[in-house]
Parts: sequence; C-alpha cells; structure tokens
Amino acid sequence: MVGGGRDAFIGAVHRKAIALDGQAELVAGALSSSPEKARESGRALWLADGRNHGDWRALLDDELKRPPEERIDFVSIVTPNHLHLPVAQAFVEAGFHVVCDKPLVHTAAQAQALVAAVARQGTVFAVTYNYTGYPMVREAREIVRSGRLGEIRKVVVEYNQGWLATRLEGEGNKQAEWRSDPARSGAAGAIGDIGSHAENLVATVTGLEIESLCADLGALVPGRPLDDDGSVLLRFQGGARGVLIASQVNTGLENDLRLRVSGTLGTLVWRQERPSELWHLPHDGPRRVLTRGSPWLGDAARRASRLPSGHPEGFIEAFANVYGGVFADIRARLAGRPAEALEADYPRIEEGARGVRFIERVVASSRSDAKWTAW
Amino acid sequence: MVGGGRDAFIGAVHRKAIALDGQAELVAGALSSSPEKARESGRALWLADGRNHGDWRALLDDELKRPPEERIDFVSIVTPNHLHLPVAQAFVEAGFHVVCDKPLVHTAAQAQALVAAVARQGTVFAVTYNYTGYPMVREAREIVRSGRLGEIRKVVVEYNQGWLATRLEGEGNKQAEWRSDPARSGAAGAIGDIGSHAENLVATVTGLEIESLCADLGALVPGRPLDDDGSVLLRFQGGARGVLIASQVNTGLENDLRLRVSGTLGTLVWRQERPSELWHLPHDGPRRVLTRGSPWLGDAARRASRLPSGHPEGFIEAFANVYGGVFADIRARLAGRPAEALEADYPRIEEGARGVRFIERVVASSRSDAKWTAW
Amino acid sequence: MVGGGRDAFIGAVHRKAIALDGQAELVAGALSSSPEKARESGRALWLADGRNHGDWRALLDDELKRPPEERIDFVSIVTPNHLHLPVAQAFVEAGFHVVCDKPLVHTAAQAQALVAAVARQGTVFAVTYNYTGYPMVREAREIVRSGRLGEIRKVVVEYNQGWLATRLEGEGNKQAEWRSDPARSGAAGAIGDIGSHAENLVATVTGLEIESLCADLGALVPGRPLDDDGSVLLRFQGGARGVLIASQVNTGLENDLRLRVSGTLGTLVWRQERPSELWHLPHDGPRRVLTRGSPWLGDAARRASRLPSGHPEGFIEAFANVYGGVFADIRARLAGRPAEALEADYPRIEEGARGVRFIERVVASSRSDAKWTAW
Amino acid sequence: MVGGGRDAFIGAVHRKAIALDGQAELVAGALSSSPEKARESGRALWLADGRNHGDWRALLDDELKRPPEERIDFVSIVTPNHLHLPVAQAFVEAGFHVVCDKPLVHTAAQAQALVAAVARQGTVFAVTYNYTGYPMVREAREIVRSGRLGEIRKVVVEYNQGWLATRLEGEGNKQAEWRSDPARSGAAGAIGDIGSHAENLVATVTGLEIESLCADLGALVPGRPLDDDGSVLLRFQGGARGVLIASQVNTGLENDLRLRVSGTLGTLVWRQERPSELWHLPHDGPRRVLTRGSPWLGDAARRASRLPSGHPEGFIEAFANVYGGVFADIRARLAGRPAEALEADYPRIEEGARGVRFIERVVASSRSDAKWTAW
Repeated sequence: MVGGGRDAFIGAVHRKAIALDGQAELVAGALSSSPEKARESGRALWLADGRNHGDWRALLDDELKRPPEERIDFVSIVTPNHLHLPVAQAFVEAGFHVVCDKPLVHTAAQAQALVAAVARQGTVFAVTYNYTGYPMVREAREIVRSGRLGEIRKVVVEYNQGWLATRLEGEGNKQAEWRSDPARSGAAGAIGDIGSHAENLVATVTGLEIESLCADLGALVPGRPLDDDGSVLLRFQGGARGVLIASQVNTGLENDLRLRVSGTLGTLVWRQERPSELWHLPHDGPRRVLTRGSPWLGDAARRASRLPSGHPEGFIEAFANVYGGVFADIRARLAGRPAEALEADYPRIEEGARGVRFIERVVASSRSDAKWTAW
Repeated sequence: MVGGGRDAFIGAVHRKAIALDGQAELVAGALSSSPEKARESGRALWLADGRNHGDWRALLDDELKRPPEERIDFVSIVTPNHLHLPVAQAFVEAGFHVVCDKPLVHTAAQAQALVAAVARQGTVFAVTYNYTGYPMVREAREIVRSGRLGEIRKVVVEYNQGWLATRLEGEGNKQAEWRSDPARSGAAGAIGDIGSHAENLVATVTGLEIESLCADLGALVPGRPLDDDGSVLLRFQGGARGVLIASQVNTGLENDLRLRVSGTLGTLVWRQERPSELWHLPHDGPRRVLTRGSPWLGDAARRASRLPSGHPEGFIEAFANVYGGVFADIRARLAGRPAEALEADYPRIEEGARGVRFIERVVASSRSDAKWTAW
Repeated sequence: MVGGGRDAFIGAVHRKAIALDGQAELVAGALSSSPEKARESGRALWLADGRNHGDWRALLDDELKRPPEERIDFVSIVTPNHLHLPVAQAFVEAGFHVVCDKPLVHTAAQAQALVAAVARQGTVFAVTYNYTGYPMVREAREIVRSGRLGEIRKVVVEYNQGWLATRLEGEGNKQAEWRSDPARSGAAGAIGDIGSHAENLVATVTGLEIESLCADLGALVPGRPLDDDGSVLLRFQGGARGVLIASQVNTGLENDLRLRVSGTLGTLVWRQERPSELWHLPHDGPRRVLTRGSPWLGDAARRASRLPSGHPEGFIEAFANVYGGVFADIRARLAGRPAEALEADYPRIEEGARGVRFIERVVASSRSDAKWTAW
Repeated sequence: MVGGGRDAFIGAVHRKAIALDGQAELVAGALSSSPEKARESGRALWLADGRNHGDWRALLDDELKRPPEERIDFVSIVTPNHLHLPVAQAFVEAGFHVVCDKPLVHTAAQAQALVAAVARQGTVFAVTYNYTGYPMVREAREIVRSGRLGEIRKVVVEYNQGWLATRLEGEGNKQAEWRSDPARSGAAGAIGDIGSHAENLVATVTGLEIESLCADLGALVPGRPLDDDGSVLLRFQGGARGVLIASQVNTGLENDLRLRVSGTLGTLVWRQERPSELWHLPHDGPRRVLTRGSPWLGDAARRASRLPSGHPEGFIEAFANVYGGVFADIRARLAGRPAEALEADYPRIEEGARGVRFIERVVASSRSDAKWTAW
C-alpha cells in the first residue's frame, strides 16, 4: 500500500475492505510521504520492519529484489491525487497489478499514457469507484442493460455533502487541505472529488455516453481556489438528457449520492445512504422496492452480497466488492484462465481515464460562454 | 366560476377548496366553453338556472345586471391557459375580484397589461400557486426569511411527473390535449405547467431573484410540439446558484415536487408528496423534522393548519389556504381595513406575471446558443 | 348536527367532511350542551336562527314539526360519548338517519338496544370509524378478503399518541377533560378513544373475529382515573394471533395508527400518517408499494379517491368517504333501490356495537387474573 | 473458533467482524461437529494443518499443550445452541477467554453454573448480542441512562422475520433444522433465537428490570415443535409497561428489529434495518434525527463508529464493536490494568444468563393460565 498513514481517511477504508473477506493481507507499505510518519503508521499496522518503507520508491525497489513468490500480489495507491500518476506508472512498468483511488490522474493526456502502459503490460488496474460495488447498483445496471426500463430518457444524479461548508482547509483539516489545493487535487474540487463518482455511477448503470455538456462550477465558500459546487446539464448520445449536481457545501447533508434513471418503461431510484434498497417504478404496475439479499435479484447483485436481507451491509462491503473483483481477476490470471465478467466485476483503468476526461470537459465548459461543450 | 365543467380536473379541486371551510359558496358559473356542457355541469352542481351560463360573457353580463348585494364576491377562472387573459381582463375591468389559475397568461406583455388593469381597479387578484399554501412551505419561508439558514448558497427544485410518458394527447385525454397544444397552453409545455410551480416555490421560500439562467428543454416523447422535460441552471442575484428540473415523462413518478435550500447555517428539504414534514438540517446539531400542527411552528404555518399533527392534511387544504387568504383580503376590504400580511397570505398577480416572465426566459434560453440568458 | 360547537374538535371535522364534496349542507343544529354556546356556535356557521337550537331535544321537536321535504335528511351526533345514547335513540325512534361518532355508547347492553331500535326503524346508522375510509385501507381489505395474503397468521395494530403525556385535563383542556372523566367517556380511556379505532381497523381489513383476549391497561400518568395506555394480546377464531397497543402517553408521537397483517402468502403494512401508501410484501417477489390513485388498485380504493396519485389526500377525505357512503345509501333509499356494497361503504351500527363489546371485554380482562378472557 | 464451518451462517459473520479492524486473526479452529467438514472448512480458511481440528476437544488439548505465547488469546463459540455449554465450560475451566453466541445455554441452572465458573476464573466472557453494538443503540442507551427521556413509561420492541414462514426445516435448510429442533435449540424457537435479542436490546438501552410477564407463544406453521411466533406483555420494576413481539413467520419481513422507548420527556425510536438513524422525539420541540458519525453524539456512539456520517456502516461493524470491546478488555488485562467502561463495552455473561432466564420465564408463562408470571 502506498499512502494511507495516520490522518488519512481512505487508506483505512481500503485496509478494512481488503481484510473483510480474508482473501488478502497487507504485508508491505510506504504509508506516507513523510518517512517518519510512514514507518510509524506501518508499525501500528504490524508491518514487518523490512517491508515498512519511508518512501514508495523504496517499497518498489524492495519488492523487485524479492523472489516472485514473496512479492506483493498487487499495490493499492491511496495517496492524494497528484501522486497517483508517478506511483501508478512505476508499479505498472514494473509489472505489478494496481488498485488506484480516483480521480485517476490530473489530465486526460496523463490518463491516456497510463492506459497505454497498462495495455502494454497486460496487468490488472482497478480504479476504486467504490459506489458501483453496492449490490443494488449492480442490480440497477442489470435492469437497465437488460432493457427492462426501455429506452432511457432522463438521468438525474446528485452527490451532495456539507462538510466543506466552511473553510476547514484553513483550520488544519488535512482532508480539506489537499482537496482544495490545485497542485494536489487537480483542476477541480468537488467535481473531481465526488462529481467523478457521480459520472461513474451514471455510466456504470446506464452505459450512456455523454455527447455534450454545460457546466456551472462555483466556489461558494469565499476564498476557495477550486470549485466546491457544480451543476451540469448533460446530453447523451442517442438523445437522453441528464443533470449532474455535485456539491460539498450543502450544510447538513452527509454523503448524499443519489441516482434516478427514467426510461420509457420505468424509473429506477437509488440512494447511497440507504444502499440496500432499489426502487423500481414500472409504467404498468405498483412501485417495487428491491432489497439486497433477496433471491429474485440478478446474478451480479447476489454475488455482491454477504448477509441475508435485512442485515445491513454498507460502504465497506461495497468497497470490498471492488477488491473482490480484483482478487478474482488476479486469481484467474494465476490460474491461467480469463476471468468471467461477473467474477472480475470492478472498474477498469478505462473508466478512470473517462472520469478524468469528464472532469476536464466540465471545467472547460464552466469557463466557456458557449452553451454546449462537446465531449 | 369560469371553466371547470365535466372532464376538467382543476375546477373540481377549486370547488372542494372553496367548500372545505364553509366560507364561500358557488352560486354562478359558466363551466365550459361548450354551452351545453357548461349548463349540464352547472346543473350537476345545483347552480340555479338563472346563474348557470353557457358562456362566460353571459355570466359577466348577468352579474353586472344584479344589485351589488346579490353579485358574486369574486370569480374563479379555471379554464385552459389561453382563456385566462380575456376572462380575467373582462372581470377585472368590471371591478370583480379574481382568482385565476396559473400560468397567468401566455406572454409577459399580456401579464403586464393585466397587472396594470388590476392596479387601476385596486381589486384582489390571486394566482393559484397552490403548493405555497402548504403549512410547511410557509414554515420554510419563515425559516429562510428570518435568516435561520444564513446566506442562501444553493437551491435545487425538482418537479417530476410521469403521466405524459406516452402520447396520451393522441388517445383522447383532454388534460393532455390542451396542455400539449401551443395555442391553448402557450409557448411551453412542462416548464409552463409544472416548472412555473417550481419557480414560484423557490421565489416564495427564498425571496431570491433570478439573475440569469441556462435552459435545456426537450420533447422526449416523439411528436410532441411542446417540451415535456426541462432542466435549468440558475444564477440568483447575490451569488446563489440553483437548478430547476421539471419533467412529465419520468415514468412512474406521480407528483414529485421537491425543494432543497442550502445556506451557510443549514439546509431545508421539503417534498410535496409528504407535505407535513419539513426537514431542517442545521450546521451545528442533529436533523430536525418539523411537522405540521406542532406548537413550535411559526405563525404562518400554524394559521394554515386545521387538524392536530399526525392527522394528514393534503393538497386540497393547501389549495384552500390560498382561498382563505383571498377571503380574508376581501373581508378586510369589505370592512374597510387593510388586511394583515399573514391573514391575506396568497400569491398575487405580480407573482403570476413573474411566472410568465420565467417561462419566456426559459424558452428563450433553450433556443439560444449562449450559455446565460439574462432575466 | 348535535354537538360540535366552539372548543370541540371532531365537530368541525365532520362539517368539513360533509362540505368537501358538495353533497350535503348543514342546515340545523344544537351545537353544544350549553344553550348559549350552542347558539353562538350556530350563528358563526350561518345557521338560520329558527334552526339554531340551544338543546338537542328542541332540534328534534322542531324538525318533527316541519314538513318532510324541509326536514334534515340525517343527523350527525358529535358530542362527548355519554350523550350518544340518548340523542341517537331519540332520533332513531323518530325515524331519522343517524351518523354517530365512536365509541357508540358506554355498554354492550346499550349498544344492543340501539341496534334493535335501528333494526325496527330500518334507518341508516353510521358510526364514524373514519380511518377505514382511507382508500388504502379499503385496498388492504380487498387484498386480504380476496385471499391474496393467504391464511392470516398474525396481526399487529398500534395506535399511539403523545398528547396526554401530561395531565392536560387539569389545565383546562376540554378535549382532555371529558376523555378522562368516566361519566362522560365510559369505562375506558385510551382503549375506548383510540383502541376502538384499532379494533375496527383490524376487523375491517381482516374480517377476523376475536375469540379471546388478554389485556393490560394502565394509567401511566399519575392521578388519572381511566387508562391512558393499554396492550392486548389477541387470539382470533381460526388460530391467528394478534397484538393491539393503544397509548396516549407516548411523548412526541402524533397520531400513529399502524397496522401489519401477515398471512401465509404475504404481509401488508399501513400507517395512518402516510395514508396513501400500502406496502405489500409478497412471499415470492419484491416489496410492492401501492399508492392511492393508481389505476391498478381495486374498485373500493379507486372509488374512495378524488385526486390523481401524488396529490396528497388526508384525514378529511377519509372522513368524507364515510359520509359519501352514507349519502349514497340515503339516496338509494330515496330512489327506492338497495345500495350496492361499494357504494354504501361505511361502518354500520353493528360495528359500533362490536366496538363497545371490545372495550368491555378489554376492561374485564385487564381487571382479571385469568390469562384469557373470552369474547 | 468452534463451529462456523461450511453451511453455517453466523461463523462467517464472526470471522468478518474479527478481521475488519485488523486487531485479531483466526489461527486455530474446530469448525464443525463433523471432523471431515471441520477440516475442509479450516483449509478453506487457510488454517495451518496443525491447528485445524476435527473436534473441539482436540483443539482445546492442542492449545493447552502449546506454550502460553503461542496459544489463542480467546475462543469464539459459534455452534448451535446445545453445544455452547460443554464447549464454554471446558474453555473457561482451562482459563481461556470466551466469546459465545446467544442464547447462552438451554437452562437458567446451566447459565448460573457457567457464570460461577467465569467468576472463579476471572476470565473475559462475552455473549454476542450483536445488535447492541450499533452506535445508535449505544447513543440510545446514553440518552435514556442520562435521564434525557425522563422516567420511562412504555417500551415496545419487535423483532420480526419471515424466513420461517414455510417449513424450511423439512427442505434441507440447515439453519432452519437445528433452530426448530428442541434438542439443539432449547425450549424455545423464535423467542430464543430472536426474542432474546429483543430482551437484551431493551435491557441494554433502558436498564429496566422485568417484574412479571404474560406470554403467548405459538407454532403458527403447522407441525413445528417450537414456537415460531410470540407476543409478551411486560411489567417492569418501577411501573413501566412493555410489549415484546418476536416472530419468524411474518412473510416478507427481513430482519425487522425495532425499539420504541417512551418516557415523560420524550420518545426514542430505532430500527435495525436503518441502523444509522436514531429518532428522538422530545416533548417540547421538533423531532430530531440523530445520525451515526455526527460530532454531537455521545462518547459511546462516537467510539463505535468507523466512517464519517452518510457512509453506511452495518451489521458487521456492530458485530465488530462487540469484538472490539472484548479485545480492549483482553489488552487491558494483558497490560495489568482495568479496562474503562466505554472501552470494554460488550455484553457480559450475566446478560447471557439473564437472557436464558427470560426465555424460561416466557415459556413458563406461555404454558400457564395465570395472567402474570413473576420474573
């Protein structure tokens, strides 16, 4: 693991997601860009001294020196955004499988370079768009893709939080600091941090491709160099319309990601804060509330579930489902066979690259006086 | 009453709202543009023959011939949109108080003429933006206006229905027919029919004024001459941002009007389909669910409530609250005194005119290649 | 109308329910047991002086003196409980149709006498168990009665309020005063006032008959002579089990009547505070949320609905549905024909009598050391 | 770990809960009563051969032979109920810390013997009443215990499921088989399996002690030797009343454990299926919805939470919180200091013994003709 030391948020989530099902174990790390903090964090996690590094290059060098059967099977990159590129590039070039947090990199050009490197190496590269790991998101995907909603007409996705409603970045909050710093976060704030999840959710569930978009980004908290609020009109290939809203200044909202997809035959509604329910509103009968763990769900949802219905699963399980797909893919490769689609069900690097493209296009549109910015 | 005969929808709602509190009685009408249907409808409502007219001009003439104490106190205009103007103009010019359905008229110029006429006559003129009659909308208005949300930053309003997801207008549905006919409905479809409610809700609760907007209207059901779906980015004077979505093709949605207003100190969330709840998310404490009928609500909400909390009130009560404000205003005038603000709490003709302006600006923006269309 | 003057609660609800659909009009009354308050209340409701009486006997005498075509079509009795019997008896004996609030009378013996009187006269006699007027309760009844839940196994009904969590009766609250006074309220407090609604709801929806019961009533607020909280175990004929809970001391609860009926093929869940939704949980598929106004509902629910789905109807509409059934029955009789079941869909005097029996049995059980008290 | 092999349900939950936070590791086991299945299950979990036993006695013997620093720190007993006693007794007598599933044992006498053994050994003994591990249950406990609800008057707890609505035990379902077999499950079915959770939830949150109870247990699915449905009236010391309902035949219900506690100053409502919300209804202000992860929660709830609010945690996290308390207690003992109350926050053997007593008293009451059975 690279990144994820003390004061980090998402690294601990990755570790719990990895540990949950007992399929993998953390054995080596460079857990912070501060060597001292890195080692201290590693010790707290019982890393062996010889595999607890102060720098990610040292980790990589050490791994390469080890015989293949002792090496890590994959690396998780959970640093702030600006480090994704150099770390990922180095590990991919060295032939390691990679799990990388989102947004993948800062620019579409960087993303393309990384996609090319992965293609050359033929390695596994997952991007942790964790929300699509929820069973009921996979059920939604199956319902839409199988045509049960008919032709999609309208998609509304919102991802709203309130935690940046004040200038936390000026009060010593590490999470707020790097997210509001263009050098570390990239060209976008909220639209990169959470808008990219919203984009991925829409693409995963519907398969629709954005044709053009019209964005209005703003820094509603005075003095913030990056957007903390954005609204985007979407036009999809084939004629569907959409709206994407992402904001981190909605005081009192927690992690309110929600999706509505309307087609000629019905509508689906899902909310991340109640992830086990998927509402399906068919045009010709009563509303249906599909619940995780039910026997009548599709394969993808059933595979992504651990407990009987009514026993709440949450964020970590969804995250673990992304890892589960990665593990299955790695195992299949070790066994010399291609993984099945439902087995290796995780977001690929191409999705990460599309997400970076999305951020670029949104930022371009927001700066433009033209109504529509083509994809 | 003008309009509201057999096959009409909103006329019956007006009548129930008028009857509910026993403050007024329907005594005369011209209930349809078809004389025969008008009279038949009037008879079904026990109108006396002499006051059951086949044409609204006959109704007006008859009323003017009666001695003042026998005349109607006000007229309700509940026809399709294109008739609002001539009927309203005639009754206003004749000195009658008027309650008129929305959208007020087809063009901003017509609206200004009507506003001027009302100003000349000094009569009561209400526009039935009925959703702002809900007690918890009035509570939301009081919370925002009193500063308890701080400075408003973001407003999201959605009004989604599904009933026009197929071409009902081609299957003999009268409601669908006139709404999708530009001659009767005006320049807009969904954005006029329900988007105007959404605009009024935002303005009522927040008092914010739109500075510019960027709209994408579409007819997502093929062959429809007017929009059935629209999404609008909003910029308000003072810097707040917003999104307004109105659609009648969200299969399976019923009458899903919902509002979220976020300020520096908190967020309010309200849904028309659960009208008795208002969620208040303060920045410094747990979520609060305010319920209709509670003693800790403000004056406006308490006055607008009839039953103890937990005894559901609904759409008709909200509608009746608009009428209640009109009745109070008329009574105050009869008593020769000005009505208090909370007593005569109903949407005025100026709001109706602003709504028409909104529709015009949205349609103009939707046809424009420029990102922002000024108000 | 007898009762329902100033300071009363339910009288005004009856009047709004009567007025809502324009099918009947209040023309005469004796609105309070205080002659002065009665007349003052009548004037406020625009009763003609000659029909605004200070005493219910005067009202009855006056009506009998009028020619039949001028007489009231029916009388609504909305007094405190202890007056139901004398007033109802007198009007029934005089041949009037009656709508009477619940609980019907104080004792089962009184109830039987009244049932017999109504049978002799052949008049309409409705008891305003208003909650069964909700469309989705009627849908629940249809689902259960048609066998779609299979054999019923378990029924849980709760009716909880919080308004009597303090000794309001000692603070001048008229509603609390008579309800906590055995002379006016009868042998039971909460179990009579709201438990009787719960019993009626169960019987209406399921048709099950109670075989034996085991009750624990308590006055949880010190110094109260009647129960303010009760819990009852139920055994139904045929083997189903049940629990009925009624409490008026659940601080913060409003009017929380809810029903769950479980059968071999599915479960139904309904809550009065969200009356437009009926949850149906079939054993072999996803949960279904049936909503008022949907085309796929049964006849009884569709007839009981006024507005399209998503336009909230509430307590008054449900109340008005009871009156609508009474009006239909009276009209059918005037037309010399029997009313159809779905047309004259209202709670009869036999249900009122059963409710009184229920209260008696619960009180007896609560006082008994034996576990089961037979019906 | 003893039990929890292939086909088991709760064993895998224990393992995920143990793994989640990286504080402990499964190193030895006797995972089934079938030696072959035990070893096969252990291999699937990467147990070393020398610690993968076919029988729990072999596991115990082997551990005792190892030097203390190599021994397991504690054993988790996750077998069917009838094995809890012999396994627990043996490990306690040998000086091991124990985590045991509920219900603890079959009889109150057995429970007392085990309590005495633990007292003699001074070891840690936890009973996995996992639902009280939810942060918002701990918040509820803090609210009640701190007096913020005033004096408790009424408690209603329901735990309803539907999975045993048919005779699954006759169709090869292992979970259903042992639960409906008195030899393995004990004297009670649903009331033992899930009613005991409900009892523990009430006791944990309120601290109230049952004075007497009145139960009606039934086997509503024909042919079942143990109850699958039960309802119990409760009287608590000090005067509060309660109702406990537990059923496994509520078709379509999933894992619907819910609690309502009403006091003189307010009411709390919690539902296991939405575990992150705790509704608090104070008598003097609007409803409050407390959410997991909020800074204004009490210490116990904040310690029991891993992720920011709005990032759903679930069943496994609650389970892991029980284990977290056990780990803290063991660590404190290793460090030679007493653990703080909030640190070692887990259900003790005394709670397990009380739960067994509860089951006995409920079964006795259900068989009795007397209304009240004393505790």
